[in-house]
Amino acid sequence: MRTVALSACLLLALAMPAAAQTPYRSMQQILDASPAADWRVPAAADTLYLELDAGRVVIELAPGFAPRHVDNIRTLARGGFWNGTSIYRVQDNFVAQFGDADADDPARARDLGTARRKLPAEFERDAEGIAFDVLPDADGWAPQVGFADGFAAGRDPQSGKAWMAHCYGVVGAGRNLEADSSLGAELYVVIGQSPRQLDRNITQVGRVIQGIELLSALPRGPEPMGFYAEAAQRTPIRAVRLASEVPEAERTHLQLLRTGTRTFRDVVEARRNRRDEFYKRPAGHIDLCNVPLPVRAAKD
Amino acid sequence: MRTVALSACLLLALAMPAAAQTPYRSMQQILDASPAADWRVPAAADTLYLELDAGRVVIELAPGFAPRHVDNIRTLARGGFWNGTSIYRVQDNFVAQFGDADADDPARARDLGTARRKLPAEFERDAEGIAFDVLPDADGWAPQVGFADGFAAGRDPQSGKAWMAHCYGVVGAGRNLEADSSLGAELYVVIGQSPRQLDRNITQVGRVIQGIELLSALPRGPEPMGFYAEAAQRTPIRAVRLASEVPEAERTHLQLLRTGTRTFRDVVEARRNRRDEFYKRPAGHIDLCNVPLPVRAAKD
Repeated sequence: MRTVALSACLLLALAMPAAAQTPYRSMQQILDASPAADWRVPAAADTLYLELDAGRVVIELAPGFAPRHVDNIRTLARGGFWNGTSIYRVQDNFVAQFGDADADDPARARDLGTARRKLPAEFERDAEGIAFDVLPDADGWAPQVGFADGFAAGRDPQSGKAWMAHCYGVVGAGRNLEADSSLGAELYVVIGQSPRQLDRNITQVGRVIQGIELLSALPRGPEPMGFYAEAAQRTPIRAVRLASEVPEAERTHLQLLRTGTRTFRDVVEARRNRRDEFYKRPAGHIDLCNVPLPVRAAKD
Repeated sequence: MRTVALSACLLLALAMPAAAQTPYRSMQQILDASPAADWRVPAAADTLYLELDAGRVVIELAPGFAPRHVDNIRTLARGGFWNGTSIYRVQDNFVAQFGDADADDPARARDLGTARRKLPAEFERDAEGIAFDVLPDADGWAPQVGFADGFAAGRDPQSGKAWMAHCYGVVGAGRNLEADSSLGAELYVVIGQSPRQLDRNITQVGRVIQGIELLSALPRGPEPMGFYAEAAQRTPIRAVRLASEVPEAERTHLQLLRTGTRTFRDVVEARRNRRDEFYKRPAGHIDLCNVPLPVRAAKD
């Protein structure tokens, strides 16, 4: 025991000078000092606006992970499918779900227009061909975790597959029991502790990059699974539109930090080991879904 | 590579028959079949009611982890300290915080009555003397994780310490920069992705066992850190009372599943490997903060 304690002290002593040399910078300080090239603008055709009375929720779609679903979502948005639908399910510490509340009733379901009625499950993709910035921290759910196309992701070198991880704000395509029963018409957003057990079990189509609080603060549905008892309790959806279909002046101009940058690595380390005055014991670890994926308003 | 794959197949083949023999039971089915002795009633002196216009939030206090803070909270509740205070901070994906919004202004701060003005930090405790039900699943934040006194917890065999883990619903004692600056008068509740970086950095005093949605669905504060800009935006608190100070007929009678039971282990396994029709790939893993800690209404 004494030897172990001594080794730990020595390790600490060796580690301290290097750490002490670098003054700690908060995430905001790191972002403020970042070069413009570290930021990207999401493509307008990959950006979805969920328009509520309370404001706009901005979603970045993930065609790199779910190309068929994203394509269908684009078709549904262009056809005005969601205009006048609702957020009909809000389950505490889990998801807010929106779309056609009558989708399961053939007599009342909305017309899907020119959208596809059948899609393959897109639970995972080939890891090859997508840049993957590995997060070295331990994860219990996946052999490897990191960031790909701007999304938190898992990867399995043995199977050669990669997939999106169910972190806060992620948008997924609701489905029935069959793996290939999602169309992208019923979408849910994670508003609680990351339900990573859903990884590779459901098709994820993007993530909320602004306005998540318009979903996470909604009244919870009192019925099982967070459904509302009465239609009047649902939150009306004015429209869901692709940014590319919205006049330039009405768009929300956002920038996302690239995950392959030194700036992002510095952000992750600043959160893994918070060396500000508040923290008495930096964690020395960060979970995938605790890593912030910074978003900022585009500069004029 | 072939050898590895073959080994995995063999392991799977060996594991399958045993798993297949047991029909899968959902968490609810397991709970419905549980013996009454697997449930405990939280002590009335360890139960705090946060009374809002929208209803009651029930908190189980953790005297096993933070005896001095819990003692102070009892004193504050008996003295009516929180009656007429507010929830003055709600930060999305992080915490809802309540207490005296003017605590930092000596001219306007509420009188703490007979409560202590100085407490030691209670970030961790000796692991000896507290029953700890180990969760075998990997965790990046702590050498060991599990459940102690009904709370999700971490443990370090080397230091001989145990501490509560910041999972959804956990209640902590807000502090300033000094480790020993919390009194239990300003309390926060986790309403987002588990901020485990706070473990061993702040004193946790309990967890919400009913009514979390009365906090998690509150409008987010628009100011930095989720503070409200105007006092009128805060959520009024009618009272905070110990259940032991409330007439029996007005109490909320709840039971909590004991974590040392076979029932609890079955619940954890049912969530670690969901073998129902929906899940195509059981995770084979569960994170500490994804483990449900079941609560039910006491049977008449």
